[in-house]
Amino acid sequence: MACGKTIYRGAFVHCASLNDLDICENGSIGVDESGKIAFILRDVGEGPQHLPDGGWEQAEVIRVKDEGFFFPGFIDTHIHASQYPNAGIFGKSTLLDWLHTYTFPLESSFSDLAVARRIYPRVVSRTLSHGTTTACYYATTHVPATNLLADICHARGQRAFIGRVCMDHPATTADYYRDPEDESTTLALSRACIAHIKSIDPSFSLLSPILTPRFAPSCSVESMRALAGLHREMNIPIQTHISENPAECALVKELYPDHTSYTHVYDAVGLLTNRTILAHAIYLDASERALIRDRGAKISHCPASNTALTSGTAKVRTLLDEGLTVGLGTDVSGGYTPSVLAEAREAIFVSRHVAMVEGEKAKLSVAEALYLATRGGAQVCGLENKIGGFEVGMDWDAQLVGLPRVPGEASIQDNDLDDAGLVDVFGNENWEDKIAKWLYTGDDRNTLAVWVRGRLVHSRRSFQHS
Amino acid sequence: MACGKTIYRGAFVHCASLNDLDICENGSIGVDESGKIAFILRDVGEGPQHLPDGGWEQAEVIRVKDEGFFFPGFIDTHIHASQYPNAGIFGKSTLLDWLHTYTFPLESSFSDLAVARRIYPRVVSRTLSHGTTTACYYATTHVPATNLLADICHARGQRAFIGRVCMDHPATTADYYRDPEDESTTLALSRACIAHIKSIDPSFSLLSPILTPRFAPSCSVESMRALAGLHREMNIPIQTHISENPAECALVKELYPDHTSYTHVYDAVGLLTNRTILAHAIYLDASERALIRDRGAKISHCPASNTALTSGTAKVRTLLDEGLTVGLGTDVSGGYTPSVLAEAREAIFVSRHVAMVEGEKAKLSVAEALYLATRGGAQVCGLENKIGGFEVGMDWDAQLVGLPRVPGEASIQDNDLDDAGLVDVFGNENWEDKIAKWLYTGDDRNTLAVWVRGRLVHSRRSFQHS
Repeated sequence: MACGKTIYRGAFVHCASLNDLDICENGSIGVDESGKIAFILRDVGEGPQHLPDGGWEQAEVIRVKDEGFFFPGFIDTHIHASQYPNAGIFGKSTLLDWLHTYTFPLESSFSDLAVARRIYPRVVSRTLSHGTTTACYYATTHVPATNLLADICHARGQRAFIGRVCMDHPATTADYYRDPEDESTTLALSRACIAHIKSIDPSFSLLSPILTPRFAPSCSVESMRALAGLHREMNIPIQTHISENPAECALVKELYPDHTSYTHVYDAVGLLTNRTILAHAIYLDASERALIRDRGAKISHCPASNTALTSGTAKVRTLLDEGLTVGLGTDVSGGYTPSVLAEAREAIFVSRHVAMVEGEKAKLSVAEALYLATRGGAQVCGLENKIGGFEVGMDWDAQLVGLPRVPGEASIQDNDLDDAGLVDVFGNENWEDKIAKWLYTGDDRNTLAVWVRGRLVHSRRSFQHS
Repeated sequence: MACGKTIYRGAFVHCASLNDLDICENGSIGVDESGKIAFILRDVGEGPQHLPDGGWEQAEVIRVKDEGFFFPGFIDTHIHASQYPNAGIFGKSTLLDWLHTYTFPLESSFSDLAVARRIYPRVVSRTLSHGTTTACYYATTHVPATNLLADICHARGQRAFIGRVCMDHPATTADYYRDPEDESTTLALSRACIAHIKSIDPSFSLLSPILTPRFAPSCSVESMRALAGLHREMNIPIQTHISENPAECALVKELYPDHTSYTHVYDAVGLLTNRTILAHAIYLDASERALIRDRGAKISHCPASNTALTSGTAKVRTLLDEGLTVGLGTDVSGGYTPSVLAEAREAIFVSRHVAMVEGEKAKLSVAEALYLATRGGAQVCGLENKIGGFEVGMDWDAQLVGLPRVPGEASIQDNDLDDAGLVDVFGNENWEDKIAKWLYTGDDRNTLAVWVRGRLVHSRRSFQHS
């Protein structure tokens, strides 16, 4: 997968800080053979450039067309790859009945590798097409299917964390879908997935295993302790769910009466670490938030899922103000969409509902939502020095966003739509407006090309023919 | 625009009642030369059919492909055509500052007909492409631009209500954008638009004028009374806004201290009639809801807009339980999307936020949201005997929805996405599941063709080449 030196010419946009979009209208980003950003030039003209030494004159040049721009690839910090066929199918259910009605029957079907062969390639195709360059995947309990997901990400070049789901507690598992009630077996299964990933990406440079106890109510204390031990032994990251739904929180209280809180359960077994990703985090009290911050654990905010399953509204502004690290998760299929762009819109909308109760300050801006989708997600994955923005030395995990301009003249008679997507730029918009239009009305049709570590991993016809 | 007899073969789905989707897997709907449904056959086989007498053997046959189905066209009961270029652009604003910051500057630019010539054709192209067969449009105060919008709808065959916006009160208008402060001039301007529509569609069979006082705070009592008089004189429908935002409600109280409520203001001037469409209706008290029901006025629910502008959450279940008539409005550009399908999803999501506070009962189902988008909208427009469902004698206002099936085998290496949209049907889904997938993950790419009164008014390449 060697790529030559490449120069990306035109506008680029990334997040300088939580509030600030850094918009460079006419830039030039050089990416070397290893997929790293070698230089960034701003305000370059159309004429010949003063390129750095080292053979950049022969580099391939990829240019932005129309009103488009380069943007960092999205980072999905929480997505159940196995649940993808259920996207949009949840009726009026809430978390605990949703698991038994929709989720466990589907996940258990991955015992048949043919099911995984049909579904997982589609998931990776879709997430790449939406500009997701990094995904934190939950698979299922099954080793062969989980390993297949790793193979697909490896082959397609998506940066991914691959988690075999661990769940052995009868309270919220099903008789037909559960790990053996013996933590050493659970551990052996997870080790098998880790070994497989090591065999295809020995240094975990693009793929990483991630320890995945489903959530406290579906895991025995012994299996959680065993996974925490594996984390300490191999420094492998951890992902789980926390405090998503009132009934779930009540169940945790019932199952763990001696613990101060849901968060303290994870802390007590050793799963609350600076490499832990906690999804949802809706009903945390102040002491739990402080403990999470002190341990350096991270939050994956999943607004579409939280609304769909009537779970509640996460207080993102509070989390951010208190110094917690937050990224976005599509949480397919609690969430209906594998698009992080759509999820960013959902994050803004959920923040409006929080603002209706808690006031103006809760509102997330377009810039903030995009920060959570890129820099925030990178921090959640522990990759903030590698991805999430455009800096010299970082990897070129990026997408080319195309925003076609509405033609100047239109016929009263005839429909003149092409197939370039729904964003309509009329030409009076400033850059902030165009980015807002992308966020609210854009979709995969605006993601013309996607790169991970310099490798082109997805492109649309309009890019290929340009 | 004469069309011959046509038979639509395959699955069709429409709403039998608020809760019940009527799904016919293998039907046959005959549409005559006037665009009316002449017969509906259910459970027809693939073989030769027993068609009614009258030349149906020679009819053109249009068949559903793959996992698709015919569905009634969507009815958008509230959309500001003139605000379309601002879709997605609203920052953190709320209603009253949003009007002055984003909306009035844009609307006022329609004094230049060239602006309207660029924007309005695009709006109609887009709404048709999303399956909107009927739209209740707000234009601007300008007669020539408003008439152009009517011309475009007429030429393209979209069923539409065309409203010249009336606003003459200094409280919430701008010096640069306001009707003359003289109700006879306001009336003359509105009459000019009515006369234009009469000149192109004398019986208002497809196009209708609609009287459009913007909302109570932007209209003088005199102009509202004058418009009410015009309504009585010509039986022309009325559309306006009501009770969208707390500051707006407070302003109405301040401007009309002698009236019991916002609703009573409209009633007192004669604008609360059984042909009145009221958008938003978030903060109505019980007496207002009773008055609206007694007068037979209708509600346009605009969930995307209400969330985006932090206006609040309309209590749709309460409105429905109390016997009010409710449809959906995209409310572009308070709402970010001209897609009624997306709006139906937003309606479900807002209902989840209401349910978080008021309990389970508030939740809208997929079937209910689609009912609001079709039958409900038809009732809101007073067209329930003509459109919104498939019944003999009704007009064929319909869309062909395509739901392509994911191929059985997928390559680990290669991305196999085509360009048929985001809905992925794997084949295990029942009909309710497929419809839910359409609602949550579908977009204009799934709307393969659209008809109004039997005339094909939009189609995608995949339909044209079938």
